[in-house]
Amino acid sequence: MVTLRDVARMAGVSAKTVSRVVNDDPAVHSETRDAILAVIRQLDYVPDHAARMMRAGTSSVVGLMTDVVATTPYSVDIVRGAQDALRRDGRTLLIANTEGDRVLEREYWRMFRAHKVSGVIYATMYHRPLDLGEPEFARTIVLANCFSPKGDCPAIVPDDELGGYAQAAHLLRLGHRRIGIVSLNPVLRASVLRGAGFRTAFAEFDVPFEPDLERPGFTGPIGEEMIVAYEAALDLLRRPNRPTAIICGNDKIAMQVYGAAASLGLSIPQDLSVMGFDDMTVIAETLRPALTTVGLPYFEIGRRSVEIMAGLPAAPQAERHQPILVPCPLVERDSCRAIA
Amino acid sequence: MVTLRDVARMAGVSAKTVSRVVNDDPAVHSETRDAILAVIRQLDYVPDHAARMMRAGTSSVVGLMTDVVATTPYSVDIVRGAQDALRRDGRTLLIANTEGDRVLEREYWRMFRAHKVSGVIYATMYHRPLDLGEPEFARTIVLANCFSPKGDCPAIVPDDELGGYAQAAHLLRLGHRRIGIVSLNPVLRASVLRGAGFRTAFAEFDVPFEPDLERPGFTGPIGEEMIVAYEAALDLLRRPNRPTAIICGNDKIAMQVYGAAASLGLSIPQDLSVMGFDDMTVIAETLRPALTTVGLPYFEIGRRSVEIMAGLPAAPQAERHQPILVPCPLVERDSCRAIA
Repeated sequence: MVTLRDVARMAGVSAKTVSRVVNDDPAVHSETRDAILAVIRQLDYVPDHAARMMRAGTSSVVGLMTDVVATTPYSVDIVRGAQDALRRDGRTLLIANTEGDRVLEREYWRMFRAHKVSGVIYATMYHRPLDLGEPEFARTIVLANCFSPKGDCPAIVPDDELGGYAQAAHLLRLGHRRIGIVSLNPVLRASVLRGAGFRTAFAEFDVPFEPDLERPGFTGPIGEEMIVAYEAALDLLRRPNRPTAIICGNDKIAMQVYGAAASLGLSIPQDLSVMGFDDMTVIAETLRPALTTVGLPYFEIGRRSVEIMAGLPAAPQAERHQPILVPCPLVERDSCRAIA
Repeated sequence: MVTLRDVARMAGVSAKTVSRVVNDDPAVHSETRDAILAVIRQLDYVPDHAARMMRAGTSSVVGLMTDVVATTPYSVDIVRGAQDALRRDGRTLLIANTEGDRVLEREYWRMFRAHKVSGVIYATMYHRPLDLGEPEFARTIVLANCFSPKGDCPAIVPDDELGGYAQAAHLLRLGHRRIGIVSLNPVLRASVLRGAGFRTAFAEFDVPFEPDLERPGFTGPIGEEMIVAYEAALDLLRRPNRPTAIICGNDKIAMQVYGAAASLGLSIPQDLSVMGFDDMTVIAETLRPALTTVGLPYFEIGRRSVEIMAGLPAAPQAERHQPILVPCPLVERDSCRAIA
């Protein structure tokens, strides 16, 4: 095992100087630092993490507390984004997956404390408000895909309103005027915000918003909800004056809209344009034709959570945090076409 | 902050006895142990992790090294299974996601060393052979979804051959005799093993295996492969004596087979039975009709990886490890029907 003294001997400096470099002490001259870092790499020296934790009272580990994010296909990109940002300075992510269990969550907070994590990203599967109530950590928590209504933590969320706007505006620009909507479960915050976005886009194009062309694609309480998008789409497509395009609450809904269209002998995009949401590539790229959709910027949210954490002030501030909104980009594939 | 001394005072024992309980010393009488654990819970005492690491030279953290498993919808269940098993004894998982980058992987091995992880689960996205070459960790590594051809590490993988057998046998039992196959990329180990399983099932039912009814659903090198399942299915379904059932290499392929059948006006399962693989619920439960498929036992593989690690001998053994095979269960939904 290579020790700090081995590095010092080879670099021709004192052990104290090596220790300063390892601990990022800016007092060390940059040439000396570079020379020592070169020796560290050459000898493959690993500073003793436990010893450093004891001295500093903190670690190079960031905690990720999450309901189901780390293990759902939807939002794992939050994990990837955070990892990517942390890796640049040799830090790593300790992932705690609570599955929504409050008792388990409490256990994990203790674990984070025991590991002296330097900060915690709290990420949720659904964009939603959250009351954290963990004052001990409050100054080092960043909320990802959720936010505190009290504004006591920095938060970063997708701009669902602008995402809904992007879905509708793209179809309106292509000339569609009768646009059906098979939405998310109406109890979801994302659903409400996107609805506001649709209305803004319709108003901009002077197209009246017809509530009768909107159907929920999911019903029931969250966690036990059922997908009813197929029936909803059939219902819209069997109307005498059927819509020329359907906006979907997510890509799973779009998949069922494809099925409903096929069962009625309608071709996409010739007879019907379909617009998804989520950019869940396993669906969007596999559907025939490939699905035009709007992406959830989860990688970006994960990456920026780490940056926000790095910029947190050491002392508590009086300010009230407003969630940072990240745009949801349009991803054009082959399921929407221009009409006369 | 509650200290070990606070616990000792309240439990009416010495600090040394509390310390023994915290460190799982079997010398402590079980009644005393239970009383001390009750006080620990009552006071919410957290043993100082860093101090314990310093003394023991190891931590309660298990590392998970993975190419892309932790962040793909396919195989995140390995993570969930491992977490579930670790949580039972208050341990946690440090996840390192290499994205297949060897340099990054080397960095992560150093990180694991620095954190003195008590063991490493090395999980891959594809079932494949792996040459590890990390002798320092060799005695505490368990390979999940991969295996060392040298047999120098314990390994646990899905039983793909039996999975292929299950796909074919189910359709043969339902009376199908002309069965098409739209397979995985033939370069994948899973594809070869499942092919052996198909052949066993066909032989058992005295049905000749017709190579002409088999098409790859993916082509090209791994990482840049293209899905061609739609065209492959059209080709099979346009034959004069078309198959009554199609076995798919995965659920994405099945999704394209559904599309091809719809484009030819064929109904599932009335005109065509379709059998998937993976049980990727986002697809299998969303397709209409819901997809009958064979599941990949990733949760089980993750859970058992932890158990295997717990049972590893302290000293290296001369034995050669054979991979443990975990069955792939049939998941019946609505896409296969019996025929006369």
